[in-house]
This record gives sequence, structure tokens and C-alpha cells, in this order.
Amino acid sequence: MSESQIIEADLVWTGTSFERDVRIAVNEDGVIASVGKVDGATTRRLERKALLPGFVNAHSHAFQRGLRGLGETFPKGEGSFWTWREAMYDLVERIDAEIIYELSKQAFSEMLACGITTVGEFHYLHHDQSKAGYTFDEVVLKAAADAGIRIALLNVFYKTGGIRKPLGRGQDRFATPSLEAYWDQMDMLAELIDPATQSLGVVAHSIRAVPLDDLVALHEEACKRGMVFHMHVEEQPQEIIECIEAYHKPPMALLNERLEISPFLTAVHCTHTADKDMDEFLASGGNVCICPLTEANLGDGLANVPRLLRNDGRICLGTDSNSRLCFTEEMRLLEYGQRLRLQKRGVCVDGQGNVGTKLLEMATSNGARSLGLKVGKIAKGHHADFATIDLDAAALKGWTETTLLDTLILGTGNEAIAETCVGGS
Amino acid sequence: MSESQIIEADLVWTGTSFERDVRIAVNEDGVIASVGKVDGATTRRLERKALLPGFVNAHSHAFQRGLRGLGETFPKGEGSFWTWREAMYDLVERIDAEIIYELSKQAFSEMLACGITTVGEFHYLHHDQSKAGYTFDEVVLKAAADAGIRIALLNVFYKTGGIRKPLGRGQDRFATPSLEAYWDQMDMLAELIDPATQSLGVVAHSIRAVPLDDLVALHEEACKRGMVFHMHVEEQPQEIIECIEAYHKPPMALLNERLEISPFLTAVHCTHTADKDMDEFLASGGNVCICPLTEANLGDGLANVPRLLRNDGRICLGTDSNSRLCFTEEMRLLEYGQRLRLQKRGVCVDGQGNVGTKLLEMATSNGARSLGLKVGKIAKGHHADFATIDLDAAALKGWTETTLLDTLILGTGNEAIAETCVGGS
Repeated sequence: MSESQIIEADLVWTGTSFERDVRIAVNEDGVIASVGKVDGATTRRLERKALLPGFVNAHSHAFQRGLRGLGETFPKGEGSFWTWREAMYDLVERIDAEIIYELSKQAFSEMLACGITTVGEFHYLHHDQSKAGYTFDEVVLKAAADAGIRIALLNVFYKTGGIRKPLGRGQDRFATPSLEAYWDQMDMLAELIDPATQSLGVVAHSIRAVPLDDLVALHEEACKRGMVFHMHVEEQPQEIIECIEAYHKPPMALLNERLEISPFLTAVHCTHTADKDMDEFLASGGNVCICPLTEANLGDGLANVPRLLRNDGRICLGTDSNSRLCFTEEMRLLEYGQRLRLQKRGVCVDGQGNVGTKLLEMATSNGARSLGLKVGKIAKGHHADFATIDLDAAALKGWTETTLLDTLILGTGNEAIAETCVGGS
Repeated sequence: MSESQIIEADLVWTGTSFERDVRIAVNEDGVIASVGKVDGATTRRLERKALLPGFVNAHSHAFQRGLRGLGETFPKGEGSFWTWREAMYDLVERIDAEIIYELSKQAFSEMLACGITTVGEFHYLHHDQSKAGYTFDEVVLKAAADAGIRIALLNVFYKTGGIRKPLGRGQDRFATPSLEAYWDQMDMLAELIDPATQSLGVVAHSIRAVPLDDLVALHEEACKRGMVFHMHVEEQPQEIIECIEAYHKPPMALLNERLEISPFLTAVHCTHTADKDMDEFLASGGNVCICPLTEANLGDGLANVPRLLRNDGRICLGTDSNSRLCFTEEMRLLEYGQRLRLQKRGVCVDGQGNVGTKLLEMATSNGARSLGLKVGKIAKGHHADFATIDLDAAALKGWTETTLLDTLILGTGNEAIAETCVGGS
């Protein structure tokens, strides 16, 4: 842990605007002790910099960084999510502990370079070639620690290769054969993690990979333990068709019926979710994680974001396949996808009609809510996790305090992110 | 002009792949003399670099760089292209020669930093506050020269504020009252430009801004002079409705009927063009310029790209409003927009089904065709304009010769562009 310190920058984002003359006291645990008029001398002056809360990446599969630039040739004509999944399984089959460590560390390091300070790692690739033991769980935690990123290891329960189907090629690397084995491993991990920067969450991979009874039991136990719960929901129409065939309703309707939806639950994607199912899910406080770049790359489609927002939907963002790591681009593409779909401007807006603050909320505090962490805000009691903006970046030129956030989010990639700070260091 | 030189990099893009052990001889005019096995000693070795042809930005309004981050608050609810245009006119009214110089130089410098070596500057902001003389034409040329970018100044004819309507607020800064005055100015500019890096093209702003007879006469004269001709076409549905009311058919049908379409003609946007009109335009060799980031920001919508490609459409790319300058993101968004629209992967593909080579063709040689310039290829007789790729960039890690292009285009922003070279220097 670091020493206690007082940090000062030209501008600090305090929730709704950038402010000057704001100093941040950080205690020796890396937690913000106070913000504003702080007693004592500044110990760290960030010149020509603005501070944002570090971005919270609520959904990542770090190892898929190994697919960047692969699977983009379609000799048989067009491709789909499912042809892409075959390429992903090819990668899975050749991964050993060293490869997953290198790929994960690479992805986490690139995340930090784009301002992400917390990753929700939706981790389903548990086993090495031997398929014995959950070798890769610890490797991913070590990669996160070595890269220096805060991680919520969202450990995945994965049992079937499709509804009532045995596991297929590659999927034996993901297998969690029983709830008992799953929770034994979670108990072991709970002992292992560094509580200063690491936490655990519970995941049912998808309706394809988890029998309904297991899903219900898994979620009940997660609730009992007060742990966040994530699940892939309705990314592809085919999943919905298969679920209706098996259970007579789509996945989201099934979740609404069988689980106690709460702010602890995050449904990832929801690209094709019916409005009424979504309304019900949101009314119970559920979170939705959208992964704009990955959903575009995979040709998933565009969710009905205005409907989500009208119902006060807590949208958070994820980099998912990590085919490109840039969180401003994720924010921008969320809004731009909707502008293209609806042929109007200003879809994701806050109460004052501003785009930047709404997108930033999704990229920070909404992600924090989804992962159950005190991050995503520069406020007392929150971890001192910051993204530092270079006010002299060429792409920002012309900024004013009022326009800086919109200029950053809509006008820049990673070139304006100077550095990131996790837990004060 | 520079000395003759022999350039060597780890990898050189030769049209369909990256190759090793390729050297490039550049003559003292900054033109490629030979590529491949070149006699003589290497004068410039680019270590850990790959060379691509510099990107060709076929459509820019450089001064709109001044709007970056502005106009993204929508207090009355949603916005549109037309509310954005009001913000643009606000900027226009406060621009003087110094401001347009600074904004243009800023935009051109940022373009170079993202690998763009040629800009087609669709220049309609001609006048300062006095409205006398075409003061800003020379200012924009000077800004390009000072930034070091190759420019095709696409000088705009602009006469009406809507079909058969007088000019409105701000638009008197754009006015070109007669064809005679327009060509007088073009003759003056032809004397002024530096032929090594500057050229001229002819533009009718849009069907809104140019009476039909003037459009026909302008295009005829451009053809006589062998000059390229650009025009905004069917970006917004409202333009099509007004055109049908006035002329009983949409803009593109009117162009097909009244102009001799050829590879010298580029229609910019074509977001809402009817398939049959597009087919006819393409059959005559016309180019289409798509501006993915701007069309997304403005909520224009998505063109029917598969139809364009099925008819061998020569799509080139433009950064238009320059709200974000990143040419890999432009390429990526062209493909991703279509994947989202069609829910499939691999829309823009070459004959072998590859995405990267097709997008690169649009970003280079197709742009060169649209601007009538010998650029966009690393080949004998072409200007020595290169984008240099940093092979050690973190975002590229894991590249192979086969995957490098896809990794660059789909996986990086500007962080992998090391430097650019225009005319060999």
C-alpha cells in the first residue's frame, strides 16, 4: 500500500463538471479520504492534467486479445458470431498457462493505457490441457496484479454445450461439472485474492451453458453471499430461439420469472431483448452491460437503448473480446450506433441533455454498480482510481472546461490518456 | 524538393500483402522511381517499421475542427443534422483569416498524425467578414503547406440557401455569385498552387446550393478542363424531398440524367440513394465517398454498402467534419456499421474474402481515383507518400505478416502510426 497523499490537478471531475482548485486526499489504503478543500500540502501535482474517475470495464474476456486481427477473412462469403466462435475455440485449444498469462497481462496493460482502472473479467477458460484443476483462475489474477489493474474476477459456471447438450470441442476447457465444485473453487479463490484490488463475482455463462435448475441455485447462493451475478443474455437471435424451444420463453423472461432481479444482477448484451422483458428487468433494478465494439465486430446488432434509458436503465460498458481497446471509442460507438439506427442525434443524454456526462456515467459509476465496487467516482470512501487526461493533447486542442468532456469522448482515442492510477498509485 | 533516396523498412505493402526485402527508390521530385530490387545503398532505414501508402482523405471541411466537442448538448431533447448545422453557422460567423488558418493547420496536422498524407479539402468557406474576395482560399492552401500535407483544394460553388432560395444566415461567407467569378478565382488559384503537393478540383456544394443549370455548366467546364468534380449527394432525406418537389426526381437521378458521369465524379455520402439510381451512377464509373464517423455523429444513417460493392462501387473515405480524426476508425466504422445493420460479419471484403485489404483500398487507391492524383499506392510513378507503422506498438502485439493489416485496421487507433511522409520527406 502507498503512503497517504494529497493529489492536485488542473481540473478534477466531481460528478457533473470539471472543477478547478480541488484537491484529493488519499489515505494509506488507497481510498479517497476527502475531496475539495483539503488540509495539508500537496504531495503530487499533476501539471496540465485533468482527473476523471478511472473507467470501469464491466465485461472482458482477456484471453480473446489473442484473436485481434484474426478471423477477418471470409472465404465462404459472409461470417457470423458462430463462425467467429469456431476461431475462438481454435485459440482456446492451444492455450496453456503461459499463453493465458501473457494475453491477459497484455490486455490488462492496454486497458490501463486507455484509462480503464477496473476490469470485470468474465472468466470461463478455467483449465489447461490436463483439464484437472482450475489452473487458469489464479493465472488471470496474477496477470491482473502484475499489470496493476483492479479486477473483479467474475468466475463462470459452465456445464453444457447448448441447452441439454454435452460439452463440445474446446468447451471442456470451461467445464464446471457441479455447483459443489464451483463453490469449493470460489471459497479457495476468496482466500487467495488480494482484497485491496481484487474481488469475486458469480457468473452463469448463458442459458446455453447452464441448466435452469443450476442457474436458479447458483443465483440464490450468490444472493446469500451478497455477490454480484453476471450472465450473457440474448446476444444472438439463435440463443433466443433455442431457449423458447426448450423453456417456452426467451432467456430474459426466464430470468425475470425465476431469479430475484436486483442491482446485483447484470445481463450482458441484451441486443435482442423484447421491450416488455427489458422493462420488467429494469424495474427490479437489474443492470445491462453493452459492449459496443465487440457487438459491432460480431455483427450482433443494436439494442433498443432509448427504451432502456426511458426506464432509467443502468447501462454499463464492456470491452468483451478486446479486439480493440479504447474506452472513449466504446462510449462514442454506443451513442453513434443509436444515431445511425434512429437517424437522430443525442440519444444517450443526461437530465440537461448532455451526451458526455451520460456516457461517462455508464463508463464509470454504472460499471461500479454492476461490479459491486466503490469505484467510478472521485468521492470520499471510493478507491482512488483515476484516469489522467493530458490537457495538451493535440486532439483536445480548443477545449474549455465546459467542452472538455465531450471533446474527449467524441473526439479522441487513447492519445489523450496520460496515465492511470489504481488505489492511489 | 528533397534529394533522391532509397528507403527501406521491415515490411512494405505492395498492393495485396506486406513484403520483406523491398526497397523504394524515390527521385528528387518526391516520386517513386522503383520498388523492389533497387540498385544503390539504402539512405533511410526505418527500423521496426512497416510502410503503407499514406491514407487519402477524400472529403474534409478542415475549419469544422473548431466544432469538436461542441453541439453535443440537446436541451430540447434530440437533435438532428439541421440543428448541428446551426452550430456550424455560429462558428462560421466568428471565423476570421487567423482562425481558419489555425483550425485548418490543426486539422491537417492531426490528419498527418493518423497516417493521412492527402486531403481533399471540400472548401466552401471562402470569405472573411468583408465578404469581398476569396481570402480564405489562399489561407487554407497555406495551412496545408505549413502542416506538410498534400492537398486537393476542392473549391466549392455555392449560390443558393436552398433550391430557389436566397442565401441565409452564415451562407454569405460561402457565396460564389456567378460561374464567371468562380472560374476567374480558379484560374488565379491555378497560378498560385505549388504543383508538387497541391491541386485543384471543382465542386457543386449540393443540389440545395447550386441551381441546376449552373450545376450542368460547372460540370461541363470541369470535364473540359480534365478536373475532378465532387458534390454532396443525398446525405439527408429532407434534401431528397425538396429536390423531388422542385425537379420531380431525387438528386442522384438528376445527376445521372443531366451530367456525364465518369470516374472524375465523386458523390459524397449517398446515405439515402435509391438502389437503381446508385446502380446507374456506378455503371458510369462514378465514385462514392462515405464519411463514417461524421455520418454517425450527425445521425445521417447507413448507406447500402453491399449494393455498392456488388456493382464494383469505388468507395472512398472522408473525415468530413473532423470531429474525430482517426482513419483506422473510419475504416472500422464503415465495416462495423454494416455488420450492425445486417447482423453479419465480413461485408467489405476483397476477392479472397478479406476485410483489411478492401478497407485499405478504400482508404488509399480509391481516394486517389476520386481526387485524380497519383497517390495511394507504393508503386513506380506514384508520389512517395507513406504512413509508417510502429511494429512495436502495444496494440499490434501478436501481429504476423498475414494478420498485421487486419490487426492495424480493426485493433488500433492512431497509436500505431509512427510518422507520415509526403513526397519523400
